[in-house]
Amino acid sequence: MASTLKLILFLLLSFHIFSLVSSHRHHPLDSLTPSEFTLVRTIVNKTYPSSNLNITFQYIGLDEPDKPIILSWLSNPKSKPPPRRAFVIARLDKQSHEIIVDLSTSVIVSDKVYHGHGYPLLTLDEQSAAVELPQKYEPFIESIKKRGLNLSEVVCSTFTVGWFGELKSKRVLKLLCFYIDGTANLYARPVEGITLVVDLDEMKIVEYNDRLIVPVPKAEGTEYRESKQKPPFGPRLNGAALVQPDGPGFKIDGHAVSWANWKFHLGFDVRAGPIISLASIYDLEKQKYRQVLYRGFISEMFVPYMDPTEEWYYKTFFDSGEFGFGQSAVSLKPLADCPANAVFLDAYYASSDGTPVKISNAFCIFENHAGNIMWRHTELEIPGENVSDIIVIVVVLFEQVVVLVDNFMVLQITEVRPDVSLVVRMVATVGNYDYIIDWEFKPSGSIKLGIGLTGILEVKGVAYTHTDQIKENVYGTLLAENIIGVYHDHFLTYYLDLDVDGDDNSFVKNNLETIKVTNHNSPRKSYWTVVSETAKTESDARIQFGLKPVELVVVNPNKKTKVGNNVGYRLIPGSATRPLLSYNDYPQIRGAFTNNNVWVTPYNKSEKWAGGLFVDQSQGDDTLVVWSLRNRKIENKDIVLWHTVGFHHVPCQEDFPVMPTLSGGFELRPTNFFDSNPVLKTRPPNLVHWPNCTN
Amino acid sequence: MASTLKLILFLLLSFHIFSLVSSHRHHPLDSLTPSEFTLVRTIVNKTYPSSNLNITFQYIGLDEPDKPIILSWLSNPKSKPPPRRAFVIARLDKQSHEIIVDLSTSVIVSDKVYHGHGYPLLTLDEQSAAVELPQKYEPFIESIKKRGLNLSEVVCSTFTVGWFGELKSKRVLKLLCFYIDGTANLYARPVEGITLVVDLDEMKIVEYNDRLIVPVPKAEGTEYRESKQKPPFGPRLNGAALVQPDGPGFKIDGHAVSWANWKFHLGFDVRAGPIISLASIYDLEKQKYRQVLYRGFISEMFVPYMDPTEEWYYKTFFDSGEFGFGQSAVSLKPLADCPANAVFLDAYYASSDGTPVKISNAFCIFENHAGNIMWRHTELEIPGENVSDIIVIVVVLFEQVVVLVDNFMVLQITEVRPDVSLVVRMVATVGNYDYIIDWEFKPSGSIKLGIGLTGILEVKGVAYTHTDQIKENVYGTLLAENIIGVYHDHFLTYYLDLDVDGDDNSFVKNNLETIKVTNHNSPRKSYWTVVSETAKTESDARIQFGLKPVELVVVNPNKKTKVGNNVGYRLIPGSATRPLLSYNDYPQIRGAFTNNNVWVTPYNKSEKWAGGLFVDQSQGDDTLVVWSLRNRKIENKDIVLWHTVGFHHVPCQEDFPVMPTLSGGFELRPTNFFDSNPVLKTRPPNLVHWPNCTN
Repeated sequence: MASTLKLILFLLLSFHIFSLVSSHRHHPLDSLTPSEFTLVRTIVNKTYPSSNLNITFQYIGLDEPDKPIILSWLSNPKSKPPPRRAFVIARLDKQSHEIIVDLSTSVIVSDKVYHGHGYPLLTLDEQSAAVELPQKYEPFIESIKKRGLNLSEVVCSTFTVGWFGELKSKRVLKLLCFYIDGTANLYARPVEGITLVVDLDEMKIVEYNDRLIVPVPKAEGTEYRESKQKPPFGPRLNGAALVQPDGPGFKIDGHAVSWANWKFHLGFDVRAGPIISLASIYDLEKQKYRQVLYRGFISEMFVPYMDPTEEWYYKTFFDSGEFGFGQSAVSLKPLADCPANAVFLDAYYASSDGTPVKISNAFCIFENHAGNIMWRHTELEIPGENVSDIIVIVVVLFEQVVVLVDNFMVLQITEVRPDVSLVVRMVATVGNYDYIIDWEFKPSGSIKLGIGLTGILEVKGVAYTHTDQIKENVYGTLLAENIIGVYHDHFLTYYLDLDVDGDDNSFVKNNLETIKVTNHNSPRKSYWTVVSETAKTESDARIQFGLKPVELVVVNPNKKTKVGNNVGYRLIPGSATRPLLSYNDYPQIRGAFTNNNVWVTPYNKSEKWAGGLFVDQSQGDDTLVVWSLRNRKIENKDIVLWHTVGFHHVPCQEDFPVMPTLSGGFELRPTNFFDSNPVLKTRPPNLVHWPNCTN
Repeated sequence: MASTLKLILFLLLSFHIFSLVSSHRHHPLDSLTPSEFTLVRTIVNKTYPSSNLNITFQYIGLDEPDKPIILSWLSNPKSKPPPRRAFVIARLDKQSHEIIVDLSTSVIVSDKVYHGHGYPLLTLDEQSAAVELPQKYEPFIESIKKRGLNLSEVVCSTFTVGWFGELKSKRVLKLLCFYIDGTANLYARPVEGITLVVDLDEMKIVEYNDRLIVPVPKAEGTEYRESKQKPPFGPRLNGAALVQPDGPGFKIDGHAVSWANWKFHLGFDVRAGPIISLASIYDLEKQKYRQVLYRGFISEMFVPYMDPTEEWYYKTFFDSGEFGFGQSAVSLKPLADCPANAVFLDAYYASSDGTPVKISNAFCIFENHAGNIMWRHTELEIPGENVSDIIVIVVVLFEQVVVLVDNFMVLQITEVRPDVSLVVRMVATVGNYDYIIDWEFKPSGSIKLGIGLTGILEVKGVAYTHTDQIKENVYGTLLAENIIGVYHDHFLTYYLDLDVDGDDNSFVKNNLETIKVTNHNSPRKSYWTVVSETAKTESDARIQFGLKPVELVVVNPNKKTKVGNNVGYRLIPGSATRPLLSYNDYPQIRGAFTNNNVWVTPYNKSEKWAGGLFVDQSQGDDTLVVWSLRNRKIENKDIVLWHTVGFHHVPCQEDFPVMPTLSGGFELRPTNFFDSNPVLKTRPPNLVHWPNCTN
């Protein structure tokens, strides 16, 4: 235990922990501070004095000033910043209120009751209350007893119910319960067959059905904690630490991060998680920062499961809008979630009663020295006939590698720049799944958006212990005895308000088209060329990947490079995955923003959440699809690129009892944004000598 | 200069340089040693005594024993290894000889003259001789004079000529010349308009045409050497070094590498570059190594350019079969091409006259601590009502993060394993382009095959200095004044002889198919499920990506997991890129092995090179396509998976004068290969304390 204490002290002493809440003057895009959350709570509670005990805050976040206001302030940052406002969704008397609070004047600017479909984000508090209900619910106690299980070892978890054409709805969720007896991996031990519906406004069980009894999968082999493992251990990995004698190369000032040629603002939202704003890159030739991304975040994630049976059909989650990526952020573990050279940042959100909650180490930021090569070239072609020339070159290029080949002296000019990038990481654990959200900035101008899937699969208990016994469709893979890993998808939809060297941009499809050579002037019969097409309206910008070869570029039609190309940033997608549900199926109507891999819309402050503002039990009437149907003009406008990254997940036994990370993502890469390679004049980092250390 | 010397001494002292040539007993798959190359040379020269001066060795490599022989030896490694044999392609009297030399008996086992289409690998020596010819060729001297250029600043480079329907051919190549005056970036300064054809057997210029004069692009802005750059420099990157107190976690014994749960054999071939053989992974549960990959390498790379005009139409290169990835391997630069913790290995090939050539530092091997997460989970659901329980948990889980939330104590169980992988890297610089070839082994069982494109673009000189002037098709992007980056593709075809837990495997297409729910028992209207299809013959296994959602798995139909799934490895592709040339165009006939992203063939010793053994000027009659047309049985057979990774490259100004790395690749991932997560019982690497160092 002494060594454990030493470890903790070491961790506490060794890591620079910055706080996103600084004493600096607010940036208008700064996330709300704890004192601002408290102020919001006070103001709203004062307005509804008799309801203090009943009002719940489902969402409190920055009411981000409209973009023209920010841009005007940015053009003169010494001017008075726009007023700080909070956007609140509160639940009161079974109604959802949309409230805007002005924080400087402590006044409620607007307060309207929402009458549309769907419900706001679920709070952790109401979920905690809901999962306690079955413990005192007689029919459930009976069901557990009937299964021969010990009630005190049963824990329940919350599941949103989706929408399946019902005309009327209540604010409910379903509970599924698990048997933890002897494991921390509750998700591996579902107590199947029971449907439990909780009315959240009443906070009581309103529907109960014990349909069938299925064996609870055994605890053996489900545990993932190191302390619970038995030998043999392995595979063994050697430790390593990154030594940075000059310290980290980045600076954090409040929410502003600057590193190498990048600067950006890092915000936190209880729903979206990380929000990157105002990312711009320093152009060495133009001697100024140039805009790239006004605002980017994960707008929604759609996770439909592929089991249509009674206890599973409804599992069609919208993790961001229902559970909140920010609310699901975990405290990152130093030296494990992030490398030794990482710096950690805290984040805050408001709990159900409006009081601020701190998430320690919600973000980490680190320089990634992964051994990649930024660029390189080896040149062998330098003529070697003139020996005096060679000697001159030998002297000049002494630092370059000289290779002796078979008594001959051949000169290799080798120039290499090792790559370093800056990573901003947050992990959202939405119940069983852990999502690793990375924003990686590269000196070459690329932004890589990485997503890693790990954690625990959502599994189904079955009677089968071997595939030979299975004669019906089980909607998944038998992972272990009595455990099916159910087929499902993950679709992450990114909001990317690119402002390529200015806010008015166009979306260009560079179609790669085969040209047949017909004139017999060339021995070739074909080649391909680029046929550019600028999207005029939203309908021109709906792209499904895989249908034809195309490079997608957001350009600034008002800015050209020296030789006349439009400056641009290109989307380099990862895999081309599209939904497989029928378009008219209810979950897909709600998740129809995944029907295309790419959409482009004109900037509109209210269009942030691809699945709508009120996603829980939504009916798909306030989604990106619906907005895009207006078919607005998008040429030479302030536009937003929406990109969906998808994974079809056929679980396999390796994913059990905890899943090795499956990675995906995409790249935003400058394309004629710079006049030439922006890292040409990057010098190799200083040589770090192996330290002369005493152990 | 003193500091430079110190640097070099430091490099020499600091890096463990292993040699792939060891004093150990040969493994039958070991690459040929220098003394074996010399022996081959002696034997062949003795056979053709009068031709000693004329014979050229176009290829000398291991004549790899047939797989059944290796497998039989592996089953009893103490038995006598199979005889060492070399495969030689020699050029003599304008004929290509295929010669097999037995090294133990010093006897030529077979020697046959090749009468088919195409020619062998080009040697560096004959290319060096060819590029000197123009300097003494009067019409060329005249052309250079006419352009007002200085002949001593002109260097030429070699280009294979392709095949465009000619019935008869000679062994020729074309030369393009460049003006280096004031830059090391010769490729940026083409002297356009001149066609120069060299007969390699005669070693003389046999065709000459000076068709048009185009301005030579200026030297300014083309230099990429650090020593030639002028301020401002940037962006600035801080240095870092990885400290591994326990040293590297891998062992190299001759050509055998072992690390964590992996072991494999690393070979080198002048044509293929790196060859990974006998990769197998230790199964902690079964307490034994299990086979994964018998042999894997890049079989061919097809790089067609998209300019049909006189001086460019023929540029349809097969870099592996024409120039040799191994022959193009460069000496890797420590601390730049590979991180500080890398270990370097040398490699050897035979020059044109058969003498061995050493490539120092041809490979590097390093453990990659990139800050990734192997797996993680945070658990919040542990019930908190029983305080004594909590205290017990606090004590037990003291190492896990404890978070104070709003006066409440909420327990987060967080288990994380940071990821470490092992990378084997080689860089092939084929003239202008640099290809970074990575094999990455992960403890989770994944093999990631990475390819990075960097180096110098192949550009075309034009009169244009601004896009406004361009009214015709220029087949590329104006990158700088007078420079067009011509559109082109890169298709890398990997040979992957997977032996998933044994040599008899099947190829399974797990089709993801939408099922409409028609029985009204479920509120859902649809879901998807997996419909598996086992490829019976080669035609069943030709896959073009993007057409329909499918998971591609190589399974062992004779081995099942405990619960009955077939053990398998899955191919997770990167991007879905396919050729855009007409199928009947000559280059595409030669490169038709890229028509599908995936092919499967039964193992056949002779089927190694997707574009054929004699690729230079080949006519496509000895390719993967032709072999596959036999439509052989592939179910429960020893099969080979061929996978093509493609890039369409629309150059942009950032790619000039040297190109930031563009990365691609794919993953081979275990899928029901293990009974459960193979890294569940991996302990986090030892904590490395920041060293107590004196500077």
